Amino acid sequence: MESVCLHYAPDNASLCVRLALEFANRPYRTALVNRAAAGQRSASYLQLNPAGLIPALETPSGPIFETGAILLWLADSAPGTLMPAPDAPGRGAALSWLFWMSNTLHPTLRTLFYPEQYLPAAPSSLRHAAKHRLASHLDLLEAEWSPDHVAQMCYLAPMLRWPALYGGPAGWYDLGNWPRLHLFAQVFEQMPATKRAAAAEGLGATPFSAPHHPIPPEGSPT
Amino acid sequence: MESVCLHYAPDNASLCVRLALEFANRPYRTALVNRAAAGQRSASYLQLNPAGLIPALETPSGPIFETGAILLWLADSAPGTLMPAPDAPGRGAALSWLFWMSNTLHPTLRTLFYPEQYLPAAPSSLRHAAKHRLASHLDLLEAEWSPDHVAQMCYLAPMLRWPALYGGPAGWYDLGNWPRLHLFAQVFEQMPATKRAAAAEGLGATPFSAPHHPIPPEGSPT
Repeated sequence: MESVCLHYAPDNASLCVRLALEFANRPYRTALVNRAAAGQRSASYLQLNPAGLIPALETPSGPIFETGAILLWLADSAPGTLMPAPDAPGRGAALSWLFWMSNTLHPTLRTLFYPEQYLPAAPSSLRHAAKHRLASHLDLLEAEWSPDHVAQMCYLAPMLRWPALYGGPAGWYDLGNWPRLHLFAQVFEQMPATKRAAAAEGLGATPFSAPHHPIPPEGSPT
Repeated sequence: MESVCLHYAPDNASLCVRLALEFANRPYRTALVNRAAAGQRSASYLQLNPAGLIPALETPSGPIFETGAILLWLADSAPGTLMPAPDAPGRGAALSWLFWMSNTLHPTLRTLFYPEQYLPAAPSSLRHAAKHRLASHLDLLEAEWSPDHVAQMCYLAPMLRWPALYGGPAGWYDLGNWPRLHLFAQVFEQMPATKRAAAAEGLGATPFSAPHHPIPPEGSPT
């Protein structure tokens, strides 16, 4: 299988892709994006992702951007390992939740972490509202989501981690309020593939169930 | 090919799916969701889409929700017609833009149309900011997007229409400011499949390049 290159920053959305690469046992290289120097907005990076966001994946057939798109592409390059194959009966339901994570949960997190990009005049009010939206999203997952597909887990687990660390003062967020999601996080972080990804980005032993700020071997999350 | 049932409301996100069904020449039935009675929050509808949003597609292998997920599922049920097949070289780039539309453009429109859901304390300030974000998204599309794949076009065209009609007083939005996107809209609305979808929802002759409020044969867009 041909090698791919993940353009990443520690504990960024690229973590979702790194997890999937590890679960797929797919050979990959990494290229650190220097966020401190706004490397994701450099001319060379915009060739990989014109939206100027992390991650991007270089592949033998060209670059791919958007976390969900990369996860799905990786899944379909080894059909049946991370997602149901395109013609399998469970495909539609698996796509539904993958898009929901990309389209609903992830944007809410962006307004929580970067409210000034969405409401420059009053970012703290938008951050406050985002916390309520996030809680409603986690309620829905707790009630309706089944951990059937690894691609979804790779997308979800980091999104359960980040609210404990980013988006203002800590302490308001406790994944323990959602027992099924908390259990998922505990199980998922014990997997060998997860441990490899967590080690590569300095996330510690309990990156999803009891997260601490990362100590990455290179680069910085922000 | 087995029939599917589209749960829709006129000029809602279900329009993207109806367009794709028409382009795929796929037989389908429709079921009107009564938005005036919050039908999308009814117990029976939540069985189709637990997030309580329109559209949902009933298929022989179960319901699918999220516009992007449905478009991709339809594309992959007739590989190569609406999107590159899963193992085709252009797949990654096609997925990138499809997810970007779902994850970036569509959420910005939601904050434009329904700001009170995102910032109950000050919806008009969020709506104002969303207009600026939308303009930056359209700038990116104008510069970087190529109309290579029908699934993307089916998602995009309605999103170019709605800002002219919904989200407060009209007049601030003119697609003519983005000449390539405007030309795409003009071409796309002349396609026979587009005309069938537009007629079914009462959108008139120029639904994307010069939109007017719909006069649907059944139901209401809001």
